[in-house]
Amino acid sequence: MDTEKILPQLVQKNESKILLVVIDGLGGLPHPDTGLTELEGAHIPNLDALAHGAACGLMIPVALGVTPGSGPAHLGLFGYDPIKYQIGRGILECLGIGLSVGKEDLAIRGNFATIDSEGVVTDRRAGRISTEENRRLVDLLQKEIGEISGAKFTIKTVKEHRVAIVVSGGDLSAAVTENDPQKEGKRLRAVEPVSPEGDRTAKLLTEFLRKSEAALKTTNSRANTLLLRGFSKLPEIPTFTERYLLKAACVASYPMYKGLAKLVGMDILSPGDSLEDQLETIRQAYQDYDFFYLHLKKTDSMGEDGNFSGKIQSLEQIDSKISAVKEMGFEVVVITGDHSTPSSLRGHSWHPVPFMLLSRYIIPDHVNRFTERECAEGMLGLFHSTEAMMLMLACSLRLQKFGA
Amino acid sequence: MDTEKILPQLVQKNESKILLVVIDGLGGLPHPDTGLTELEGAHIPNLDALAHGAACGLMIPVALGVTPGSGPAHLGLFGYDPIKYQIGRGILECLGIGLSVGKEDLAIRGNFATIDSEGVVTDRRAGRISTEENRRLVDLLQKEIGEISGAKFTIKTVKEHRVAIVVSGGDLSAAVTENDPQKEGKRLRAVEPVSPEGDRTAKLLTEFLRKSEAALKTTNSRANTLLLRGFSKLPEIPTFTERYLLKAACVASYPMYKGLAKLVGMDILSPGDSLEDQLETIRQAYQDYDFFYLHLKKTDSMGEDGNFSGKIQSLEQIDSKISAVKEMGFEVVVITGDHSTPSSLRGHSWHPVPFMLLSRYIIPDHVNRFTERECAEGMLGLFHSTEAMMLMLACSLRLQKFGA
Repeated sequence: MDTEKILPQLVQKNESKILLVVIDGLGGLPHPDTGLTELEGAHIPNLDALAHGAACGLMIPVALGVTPGSGPAHLGLFGYDPIKYQIGRGILECLGIGLSVGKEDLAIRGNFATIDSEGVVTDRRAGRISTEENRRLVDLLQKEIGEISGAKFTIKTVKEHRVAIVVSGGDLSAAVTENDPQKEGKRLRAVEPVSPEGDRTAKLLTEFLRKSEAALKTTNSRANTLLLRGFSKLPEIPTFTERYLLKAACVASYPMYKGLAKLVGMDILSPGDSLEDQLETIRQAYQDYDFFYLHLKKTDSMGEDGNFSGKIQSLEQIDSKISAVKEMGFEVVVITGDHSTPSSLRGHSWHPVPFMLLSRYIIPDHVNRFTERECAEGMLGLFHSTEAMMLMLACSLRLQKFGA
Repeated sequence: MDTEKILPQLVQKNESKILLVVIDGLGGLPHPDTGLTELEGAHIPNLDALAHGAACGLMIPVALGVTPGSGPAHLGLFGYDPIKYQIGRGILECLGIGLSVGKEDLAIRGNFATIDSEGVVTDRRAGRISTEENRRLVDLLQKEIGEISGAKFTIKTVKEHRVAIVVSGGDLSAAVTENDPQKEGKRLRAVEPVSPEGDRTAKLLTEFLRKSEAALKTTNSRANTLLLRGFSKLPEIPTFTERYLLKAACVASYPMYKGLAKLVGMDILSPGDSLEDQLETIRQAYQDYDFFYLHLKKTDSMGEDGNFSGKIQSLEQIDSKISAVKEMGFEVVVITGDHSTPSSLRGHSWHPVPFMLLSRYIIPDHVNRFTERECAEGMLGLFHSTEAMMLMLACSLRLQKFGA
């Protein structure tokens, strides 16, 4: 059902407060030796106790079978159809390193690369130069090319050969072709407009590349050009205030998640690194917001590293502090993940994610453990992440009756 | 979620192999005496054991409450929205008897019928003439009317009063009206174009009917005309190769299923009639394909006949051979049905169908019996058939991450 259409006539304000806890990469897969997932192997009595009093289910991040990146996964969880609202790669690269992107800006992801004297790409990653070397080259480029014809270029090191670039000022467009030939042994392509609105941008980027190559020539680095990709501008997304009448705050340590939260209009609070600090940050700001999004990263990193026992430890660390959310006064608390990151896959996956909803207005189910298999038998069944916000709004009595 | 849009950016090739076993009409309803469905009454230890190690669920063929024909049911299972991709009745009638239909051809289903001297239809089925008599009449028509103005007519007996016709050659269109008045006591209608593109076809069919009536007059059959219906051309369906980058093969004994598989670009392999032969056919062709579709018909026929114990026997026959699929090397095996065919309904039904997914990348659930009631408690929950291909692709690691 497309509730986006009727949402404006349903949402209303009140004094209730909502907490969304996102344990990144929460779901997992069974360990071959034990047959137990990370959650099943973890000693998490407090999460289990919370699940016992909650309505539980399994949440599909985008669609069955689809493995989401952090962008689509979070948009879904924030209630935005991630297929309708697609965020460009350039934007995500910039958000990921904390580079802020304005409404009119153009975001780009780039690689340092090596070309021969004919302009043929011989190494798309310039031998994976060190992050250190990347920084030196970026400093040089930033000094040499701060501005071209009224457009300001902000260049930042991501890591190794990767950079992120934000162009601001004037009429910028993503309607230009990439100069990356995608394969080694092929010539660099020209950056060309794909429609008239891309004219100025194509000229700017062509000049930017010319100047970059001239500057890089003065170094003895293998990196003698840049491949520019993922041109993108901010998508037009209604904010939390516009869409839900919620004043929302983000409590996260990693730039990517702060960036995603900013995209939907959340204020970014600056917590310390521990869960205790983060909860304290929420306590301090409690009166100022209707909605808190708390992001916990470590479980995902452990999954990405294929570190099964490390992921279990991260879960147990969260478990040891999480009970505090019960005493903070929230009308609605949701604890879930943005997607699964099974250690056995060393990356994000398509598997539905355990989800618990605490509220006065739920029917607690028979789920006694906060695991994939138990949540599969919960009252909420299997549902799409885009529906989670509707449940949170409903349980905080922020949705009026639809029709008479 | 409309994954069709993002599929092209997700699919990738690899060496993994997928097997889809379709037990036609798999699902059933409880027998009034025992309260057990066909699956629950059957002794199927091997299917149960497979389900024990699988992720299970119930699959909705089209939508809750919708009873699908074989066409929509299979399209859904092959990942095509059966409401978006509708296959004309004429096409299905032709596929069902193994009559091949080309891209430019027009497919028609027809009835032999009886009209009086005024052209009023007195029997829409010509007294349900025997299939034998049908064949004699079709031979006559085929001899008398092979071609009209450059269009070739291929006429085939279906059974009793029913025929299938393929017209090929030149500019053919389904935009013409049927001559069938739908009710006895009414006059035959004229075949007329509903838009200019139907002009030539209307003329051809009018002439075809004139010639048919002339030929039929020379016999003493009650069949003295034809009612033509279900005019249709092949729908434009992306093939498995285009859509999924899968080279796919069909192992089926019945023409309808071979026809449906051909429609989505599968190669048709010719197995013997037994499940052992069919599995051997797959073994032989194993290296040549990425995806195998194995169709087992008998359970559906038994259900259609209202033969509860016959359906149980068919299930038990399948069960006795099915374990072999475990040793064939497939990365992903799905065993399900295209729809339910409860013996008590003597026909297809709308009930969701038991579904099991075997893969390294699933969480085996608590399902220990491959039955409707147990699958309802499986990890996969209740999902739409169009999502099944996404799961198979994901579990064979053929879908890249969506977004960054």
